[in-house]
Amino acid sequence: MNILIINGSPRPQGNTRKLTHKIAAALRNENVEVSLFDLSVNHLPLFDGSVETEEKSEVKHLQSLAEQADGFFICTPEYHSAISGALKNALDFLSRTYFTGKPVAIAAAAGGGKGGINALNNLRVITRGLGGLTLSPQCVIDPDDFNEQGDLQEHVLPRLQMIIDDLLHYTHLLHSKQNETISV
Amino acid sequence: MNILIINGSPRPQGNTRKLTHKIAAALRNENVEVSLFDLSVNHLPLFDGSVETEEKSEVKHLQSLAEQADGFFICTPEYHSAISGALKNALDFLSRTYFTGKPVAIAAAAGGGKGGINALNNLRVITRGLGGLTLSPQCVIDPDDFNEQGDLQEHVLPRLQMIIDDLLHYTHLLHSKQNETISV
Repeated sequence: MNILIINGSPRPQGNTRKLTHKIAAALRNENVEVSLFDLSVNHLPLFDGSVETEEKSEVKHLQSLAEQADGFFICTPEYHSAISGALKNALDFLSRTYFTGKPVAIAAAAGGGKGGINALNNLRVITRGLGGLTLSPQCVIDPDDFNEQGDLQEHVLPRLQMIIDDLLHYTHLLHSKQNETISV
Repeated sequence: MNILIINGSPRPQGNTRKLTHKIAAALRNENVEVSLFDLSVNHLPLFDGSVETEEKSEVKHLQSLAEQADGFFICTPEYHSAISGALKNALDFLSRTYFTGKPVAIAAAAGGGKGGINALNNLRVITRGLGGLTLSPQCVIDPDDFNEQGDLQEHVLPRLQMIIDDLLHYTHLLHSKQNETISV
């Protein structure tokens, strides 16, 4: 069982990135195979619908990770009441082929107040458009959810763990059902 | 009075681009000064929050056009139930400074059926986040709204003209009010 985590923030120092690292550690702690596509490290070209762009190695890398994934955990910052352009651009290289029948967990890292909710609503509609099984639990991590060392504070962890549990539950269920169908 | 039209499609052969050309012609027909930022021609870098990226000439060009604009007409395709990554990326380089107090008209070119509505809803929330005065009238142009020559069919024009009239009405009103305030 493989989970692809996507860091939707292009900022290397961003809180979204810290959040994805925390999720990766929590998943590995449960012996889950984790892949990470990090938009602050993995630099994609701008999607323009051309064959040339689709053939770039970083695009192929993203598509290969998405193909191998049994489930997704996508994290986004909120830029102007939506997901980042960088994340939408990455998702434009994917299609229903990569998402259909796979659970998708979503979370945002935002600036506080009500920030993050519009980004999550935006991401939920997009992952539905992509055919994913977007799960109900979600969360927004605010700046004061991190301590001075940049670690997530204790009070956030149960919520995050609940999302991870839900993702693993459905991924396992669908993964084993698919294998069952294949073996029949 | 200057209107900035943004083609949110990175595809040179896209219907969104044809739509922006039609809007530009209609605005020029009313002696309105028009600027066009065309994402199938004007290639921006991916926004990453860095000073180096902000200093790229194409970013400065977009920001300069947005600063000079008194109103906006933004057109988008619908990719995965949202605006294109290319358009969100372009908007990530802008801020409330460029939009506050300015009317924004929006339209989509989509694949038919109910397509385009999610992209418009997404764009409306984003332009609100940017502080723009996003206008009520909107439209989605479907493939069969174009004739074989690639021109918009007659039946679409009254709707498009209504949006243009609304944009010009509010832009003129706000533009003259601002000048009035300045002259007082």
